[in-house]
Amino acid sequence: MKLKNLVSQRFKERPADCVIDSHALMVRGGYMKYVGSGIFSEFPTLRRVTQKIERIIREEMDAIDGQEVLFPVVMPAELWEESGRYDSIASELVRFNDRNKSRMVLGMTHEEAAVQLVREYGQSYQQYPFMIYQIQRKFRDEARPRAGMIRVREFTMKDAYSFHTSQEDLEEYYQRCYDAYNNVFRRAGVPEVVTVASDSGMMGGSISHEYMLLNEIGEDSIVLCTECDYRANMEAAENIVNNVSTGILNELECVETPDCKTIEDVCAYLKSDIAASCKAVVYQKNADDKFVIAFIRGDYEINETKLRNLVGEDIHPGVITEDDPIVAGYIGPVGISDKVEVYYDMSLKGAENLVCGANKEGYHYTGLNIEREMGEVKYFDLAKVNEGGICPHCGKPALTIKRGIEVGNIFQLGTKYTESMGMTYTDKDGVAHNPIMGCYGIGVGRLAASVCEAKHDAYGPIWPISIAPWEVHLCCIRPDDENAKEIADNIYSELKKHGVEVIYDDRAGVRAGEMFADADLLGVPIRLVVSPRNLKENKIEVSTRDKSLKDMVDVNDIINYVVELKNKMFAELA
Amino acid sequence: MKLKNLVSQRFKERPADCVIDSHALMVRGGYMKYVGSGIFSEFPTLRRVTQKIERIIREEMDAIDGQEVLFPVVMPAELWEESGRYDSIASELVRFNDRNKSRMVLGMTHEEAAVQLVREYGQSYQQYPFMIYQIQRKFRDEARPRAGMIRVREFTMKDAYSFHTSQEDLEEYYQRCYDAYNNVFRRAGVPEVVTVASDSGMMGGSISHEYMLLNEIGEDSIVLCTECDYRANMEAAENIVNNVSTGILNELECVETPDCKTIEDVCAYLKSDIAASCKAVVYQKNADDKFVIAFIRGDYEINETKLRNLVGEDIHPGVITEDDPIVAGYIGPVGISDKVEVYYDMSLKGAENLVCGANKEGYHYTGLNIEREMGEVKYFDLAKVNEGGICPHCGKPALTIKRGIEVGNIFQLGTKYTESMGMTYTDKDGVAHNPIMGCYGIGVGRLAASVCEAKHDAYGPIWPISIAPWEVHLCCIRPDDENAKEIADNIYSELKKHGVEVIYDDRAGVRAGEMFADADLLGVPIRLVVSPRNLKENKIEVSTRDKSLKDMVDVNDIINYVVELKNKMFAELA
Repeated sequence: MKLKNLVSQRFKERPADCVIDSHALMVRGGYMKYVGSGIFSEFPTLRRVTQKIERIIREEMDAIDGQEVLFPVVMPAELWEESGRYDSIASELVRFNDRNKSRMVLGMTHEEAAVQLVREYGQSYQQYPFMIYQIQRKFRDEARPRAGMIRVREFTMKDAYSFHTSQEDLEEYYQRCYDAYNNVFRRAGVPEVVTVASDSGMMGGSISHEYMLLNEIGEDSIVLCTECDYRANMEAAENIVNNVSTGILNELECVETPDCKTIEDVCAYLKSDIAASCKAVVYQKNADDKFVIAFIRGDYEINETKLRNLVGEDIHPGVITEDDPIVAGYIGPVGISDKVEVYYDMSLKGAENLVCGANKEGYHYTGLNIEREMGEVKYFDLAKVNEGGICPHCGKPALTIKRGIEVGNIFQLGTKYTESMGMTYTDKDGVAHNPIMGCYGIGVGRLAASVCEAKHDAYGPIWPISIAPWEVHLCCIRPDDENAKEIADNIYSELKKHGVEVIYDDRAGVRAGEMFADADLLGVPIRLVVSPRNLKENKIEVSTRDKSLKDMVDVNDIINYVVELKNKMFAELA
Repeated sequence: MKLKNLVSQRFKERPADCVIDSHALMVRGGYMKYVGSGIFSEFPTLRRVTQKIERIIREEMDAIDGQEVLFPVVMPAELWEESGRYDSIASELVRFNDRNKSRMVLGMTHEEAAVQLVREYGQSYQQYPFMIYQIQRKFRDEARPRAGMIRVREFTMKDAYSFHTSQEDLEEYYQRCYDAYNNVFRRAGVPEVVTVASDSGMMGGSISHEYMLLNEIGEDSIVLCTECDYRANMEAAENIVNNVSTGILNELECVETPDCKTIEDVCAYLKSDIAASCKAVVYQKNADDKFVIAFIRGDYEINETKLRNLVGEDIHPGVITEDDPIVAGYIGPVGISDKVEVYYDMSLKGAENLVCGANKEGYHYTGLNIEREMGEVKYFDLAKVNEGGICPHCGKPALTIKRGIEVGNIFQLGTKYTESMGMTYTDKDGVAHNPIMGCYGIGVGRLAASVCEAKHDAYGPIWPISIAPWEVHLCCIRPDDENAKEIADNIYSELKKHGVEVIYDDRAGVRAGEMFADADLLGVPIRLVVSPRNLKENKIEVSTRDKSLKDMVDVNDIINYVVELKNKMFAELA
C-alpha cells in the first residue's frame, strides 16, 4: 500500500493527555482514535497489528485442539443469574433493559455463555476433554480507564474455556495452554513475558497464572525472588514474617498520645520502632457497611485482595463517624467493640511489646502482647510483601517488587460454573458429575499496546516483524527523479510478488526527514531508502527499525536480500 | 478434524419453534444455539462458515482499496447526537447509562463513528477518495426477531464507508462496490442474488440498492418486471395508475350506508366496483399523535414507507376515539376536519364518480369527483404496486411481486453525516466543502443462513464449497476393520497434506445410516466413503452433497481425484 493513501494522520507533538509512551506514540502515529472514556477506534495501521496478533492466537489455540466459536456481546440477565454473578459483580457489569423491559448485560467475560453452549453437548464423559474459544469484543465498565489501550472499557479478547472430567486432566491441559501462551508471546515478539501465580478474584477457582510483561508503567505489582524462580502477583504473594522472641514481656500500659492519629505519629511521639506497633486498618463491607478491622504490624500494608478473599465478600476502605463503635486513629485489639469483625495478620504472630490504639480518643497502649491480652487468636496472611521480604520458596530474604502489565491469564476454574449452572456429565458407571473447567484469556489490543510500550524509542514503536503493520517500509526520496521512481516502483511490485508486505512512501515534495519521521512512527522493521545519490553507485540503503543493521545493497540483489532478512527475523521469533 | 471431537450435537427431529428450514437445519446440525430473543452463539461448525464468508468479504473490500478499521460497539450518546440520530431512531437503538451516568448507545451501524474517525484526516481534497470498513458485532433491538439467523438482534456485519469530493466520484466508487458485492455473493455460492433499487430509510441519502436473494421466506417484497430488467423493493417501487375518463360525471350524493365500516362493505352494499372508491387510511404521527389521512383508490394499499418519507417523520396506524374530529369507517375528503393532515395518492388522479366516506356516522357519498369537489389537489405516489401493475421502465403491465431476503445493501449517503457532524475538506482553491459519503453493508450471519435457506434439501444444508465448514467429509464405515481404518486414516492425512479441509468420521459402533445423516446435516460438498465392501475392489465411493456426482474411484487415484474436484468446484464460483 502507498503511504499517501493510508487513512491515518501522524503528529509531531506528544499529545498532552497521554501519560505513557505507547499511548502517545500510537496517537502520534495514527493508530487509534479516542471515542469516549476507555473507548477507541482502530485506524487501519493498528487493525493490521491486531489482526496479526489474532492470527497468531488462533494458530496457537487451534494447535492445542481449541475450536473457535462465537458468543454474543449482549446476553440476558437470566444467564448471569444462573451463575450468581449478575448480583455478585458490581458496576463493571453493564446492565440495561431492552425494548421489552427484559434485563440484559454486556459480556465482560463468557463463562456463562460457554457453559450454556455446551451444557447439552457435554452430557457424556466420552465427549471430554474439549476446549472452545472466541475472539470477540467485550465491555467492562472500568472505574478508571487509563494508559491508552492498556486499560480500556471496550476491548477485543481471546477467551477460551476447557472442560474436563478430572483435575488431572485439567492440569494436563492447563500445562498445554500454559505453553501455548508462551508461544503466543514469543511469536508476538515479547518472549520476556513471565508467568506469575495470581489471585483468581471474581473468576472463582484456585490455581491461576498471569502473563506479565515487566514494565514500570504496569499497574500490577509483581513479587520476584532474586535467588530462585519464585514469581507471584502481589495480590497472591505469600508474606512471611519471622518475629524473634526477646523473652521479655512488658506490662500493658495505657498512655496519653495527644494528636497522634496515625501509627507513624504515635511511634514518633513514643520514640518506638514502627515494627513494634500493631496498626489497625479499617474496612467496611459493601453489602451492609459493617466494619472489618485488620490488625497488622506497623511496617506492613494490608493486601486488600487477601482480606476480601478471607471476608468472603466485597469491602471498601472504612469511613468512621462519631456514632460508630470505634474511634478513628485509636483502634486497638484490647477492648474493641464486638460489633466489628476483627482479623489478625501473620506479621503480628510472636510480635512482643507492641504499641496499639486504646479504643479511647487520645490514648494508646504500650506493651501489647496479643496472646497474653486476647487469648488464643487466629492469624491470617493479609499483608503485602515488602521489598527484601522472605521468599516462600527458597526461604531467603531476597524478594523484590517490580511493575508488570498483565497480557494474559489462565485459570483453573474448577466446578464453580458447571455446578451453579447445572452442567453434568455421566461417567462410565452412569454417575453424574460436574465437569471441571479451565479458562484462558488474552487481550488483543492490550497486547499490541504492551509490545509498543516494551519496544519503542523516542521516535516511534519498534514492532516485531510478526505483528508489524507491514514488513518493509520503502521510501523513494526523490520521486521526481525518473530513475529513482522507476527503481522504487519496481522494488515495490517485486517485493509484493514475493509475498512481502510493503508500505511505499512515494509522496512528492516531502523532505527525507519527514519521510523518516513517519517511518519511525509506523515502526516497520525493515526500511529501504531509494535515493538518486545512492543509485549513482547502484545501491539501496537497507536498515532495521531497531538500528541493529544498516547496509548498502546492490539494486540487483535487493529483493533476495530483503526476503532473506524477513525470513531471518521471523525465524528469530519462531 | 475428527467428527467425534467436534463440539456440536446433531438432532433427528425438527425443533418445534423453527418456522423456516434453514433455522431448523442449523439447529439440528449443531450450528447455532439460542441464548435469548434474537441472540445466538455460533458452534464451531457455523463459525467456520462465517469465517470463510468474512474472508471473502475482506478480499473483495481490499480489492476495491478498502482499508480495514475497527469501531467500538459501545459509543457515547454525544456522538449520535451530533448526527441527530440519537433522537430520531426509536427503540431499536439501545441506550444505557454507564457507571458514571454517562449516556451510551450500542452501535447498530457506524456512520457517526466513521465520520468521527476520519474527520481530521480528510481535511484536504488530496486525501480523497478513500474507503474504510470493519467486520464487527452490532446490536439492533428488533421488535420481532425471527427466522433464526435471518432477523436477529445481535449480528456480525461488514460495514464500509467511502468519502468523496464529488457526486461523480461517489458514483464511480459506488459502481465498483456494486460489482464487488456481486463478487462476494457469487463467490459465496449464491450468484442468483439480484440488486433492487431501494428506499434509503433512516440512513439518509437518495440512491441505494439492496442485494436480494429471492426466496419465499424473505420478508421483503420485490417488484420485478417480466418484460424488462426493472427491479425494486416494494418500499421504493413507483406505482403507475392510468385512470381513463368516461366523460360522464355523476352528482355528489350522500347515501345511507348502515353498518358499512370498510370500503369493501360499502362497495358490496352499493354494488359498486372497489376500484371506483376513495379509501381513507388513517395514521398518527409518533411525535404528537396528530392524524394523517391518506386517500387512495380502494383497490390499492398504502406503502407506509412512501407515506412516512412524504410526511417527514415517523407515523403509526391511527386509533380513532369518539373525541376525535374524524369518524372511523366514514372518512372522506368532502368536509373533513382541518385538524388532520390529508394526502392523496396518484391512483385517485383522474378517477371519476367515486364512493367515499361522508364524515358522518352511517353515511357515504357517491359520485365523488375529487377536483370538482375539492378544487386543485396535489397527488403523491403513496401506493404499493399491485401484481400485474405497470412497469415504470418499459410501461408494460408486467410487474410481478416476489419475496426476497436482503443480504446486502449499498447507499449513496450524500452529505447527511458530514454536514451534521461538521466534517469538511478544503478544495484546490481553499474553499471548504462537506465530503460526500457512501455506505455499504453485508450481514455475515444472515448471509450464512440465507445460503442455507437457498441451498438445502430435507436432510441438511448443501453448502457451496467456498463457505462450507469443511471441503471433504470422510466416512470410515467400519473402523473396526483394520484395512478400512488404515486406508481411511491415510486418506485423511494425505488430503490434509494437500491443503484439503477434511472432517473425518471414524466413530466406532455408529451405523452407516447415522454417519450419512450426520454428513447431510454438515452439508460438506464432497463425501468419501471408505468401506470394507468397496475396498474388495480397491474402490472409494465419492459423491457430492448436491447429488450431482456419484463415482467409484480407485484408492490410488483418490487424492488427485478429490483435489481436482475441489479445484473445479472453486473454479465454478470464481
